[in-house]
Amino acid sequence: MKHGQISSKELSEFIRERATIEEAYSRSMTKLAKTASNCSQLGTFAPMWDVFKQSTEKLAACHMELVRKLQELIKEVQKYVEEQAKNHKKTKEEVASTLEAVQNIQSVSQALQKSKENYISKTLEQERMRKEGATQKDLDKAGLKVKKATETYKSYVEKYATAKTEFEQRMTETSQKFQGIEEEHVLRMQEIIHSYCQSVEETHIQIGEGQEEFVKNMENTSVESLIQKLAESKGTGKERPEMSNILHYNTRSMFDLIAVTRWSLHWRICGVLTLTGAFS
Amino acid sequence: MKHGQISSKELSEFIRERATIEEAYSRSMTKLAKTASNCSQLGTFAPMWDVFKQSTEKLAACHMELVRKLQELIKEVQKYVEEQAKNHKKTKEEVASTLEAVQNIQSVSQALQKSKENYISKTLEQERMRKEGATQKDLDKAGLKVKKATETYKSYVEKYATAKTEFEQRMTETSQKFQGIEEEHVLRMQEIIHSYCQSVEETHIQIGEGQEEFVKNMENTSVESLIQKLAESKGTGKERPEMSNILHYNTRSMFDLIAVTRWSLHWRICGVLTLTGAFS
Repeated sequence: MKHGQISSKELSEFIRERATIEEAYSRSMTKLAKTASNCSQLGTFAPMWDVFKQSTEKLAACHMELVRKLQELIKEVQKYVEEQAKNHKKTKEEVASTLEAVQNIQSVSQALQKSKENYISKTLEQERMRKEGATQKDLDKAGLKVKKATETYKSYVEKYATAKTEFEQRMTETSQKFQGIEEEHVLRMQEIIHSYCQSVEETHIQIGEGQEEFVKNMENTSVESLIQKLAESKGTGKERPEMSNILHYNTRSMFDLIAVTRWSLHWRICGVLTLTGAFS
Repeated sequence: MKHGQISSKELSEFIRERATIEEAYSRSMTKLAKTASNCSQLGTFAPMWDVFKQSTEKLAACHMELVRKLQELIKEVQKYVEEQAKNHKKTKEEVASTLEAVQNIQSVSQALQKSKENYISKTLEQERMRKEGATQKDLDKAGLKVKKATETYKSYVEKYATAKTEFEQRMTETSQKFQGIEEEHVLRMQEIIHSYCQSVEETHIQIGEGQEEFVKNMENTSVESLIQKLAESKGTGKERPEMSNILHYNTRSMFDLIAVTRWSLHWRICGVLTLTGAFS
């Protein structure tokens, strides 16, 4: 029973440690997600960081969910630990009579030993006297002693028989009680381990889904699409400005000319910006 | 290009952080496995701790294997970072002529603007004089000025045309070069992410296998088998000693009696030990 209480406390301690480790891991992952979101938001690769951020956050969440489940489980184990202590107290009272039986058989068996030794010595004494040809009076005295010793021994053998039956009966009952307690204990422990496994497995599945999602998102971002995104954010317009035609002009075409030149100037300046941007 | 270098450095930093987190997790799991192996080796539950120990060690090993793979990957990323820097240096030299074209078109377009404004003012001046009925001599003077301004403007329009063609050609070449560089960059980054995903997935599978093994081992340890193990380790023998028969004795049976009583004493003492053991 003592080991039963130790092992249930140890199990709850083990689960608590596992929860602590998972929590630390989850927190580090949240930090890592922040790192990803702090990464450069410029250049073709920038959009990828969102994917990293999301999947890392998902991973952190999965492990935090496991922490929550394990903490729930620890509460259950704690409840069991208390029940167990109560039951053991109760059982100790129930088996008190067994202890009596034990003490009884111990004392009876000692008395039996003594009476047996006395019986043996008296018998050997009587035989020795017979061999040495003692007087009838002395032989009768010895005979009387043997008779007494035999009766005492006989009575203790009977007392011992009763004590032994009592002892064996109590011992059997108690052993069965203890076996019952052990079976119940192992069953409860196995239930706890079962839900421990379940939580771990659920988390494992969620992590797998998160990972698949990550891969899918990465595959969905093609090189072309990234280049396209960059071009759109940095581009200076898609049309190439017309060449200003000077040769046949009038007041009207003159003002077109001014417009066109402005436009092409604008386009050039943007072009230059992109170029020097690339150089800087 | 600058952002390309930043992002590849950031990616290698991200992977390094992930590796650090995985390593910490793995070490904590190894500790937890030790805790499991330090748990009480007595009582029915004791054999379960081996299962916990093994599976926790397996988990630790899986994550350490991931660390190893990520460190390999970081080396690759580092190699790429260096290549990238070399390529960018080379490209900057190659596109130097584009900068010249840019500076050229900027100066030419400024001259074009000036000559155009001069041409417009001279034309308007001539028309104003005509309206105000200036002398023929003055009109000829103005006409000469307009002719000059027109020629200058015309020549700059031609210069600008050449400069513009040159500029557009260089810009196109350079843009294509940059696009090539960007495509190469994103491809390399995607390769890196691909092997990152692969390592993470492999680890995930291994962890899943470890978990399954754990569940299997737990299911294989039945309550009966655990009780059996305990009984065998703590038992005091399976036979119940005979009851000593006192009623018909002779010297011979007397010595049997002594033997039997010893045996039953031995059995009782063990019984008592077990019982008090259970109580302690």
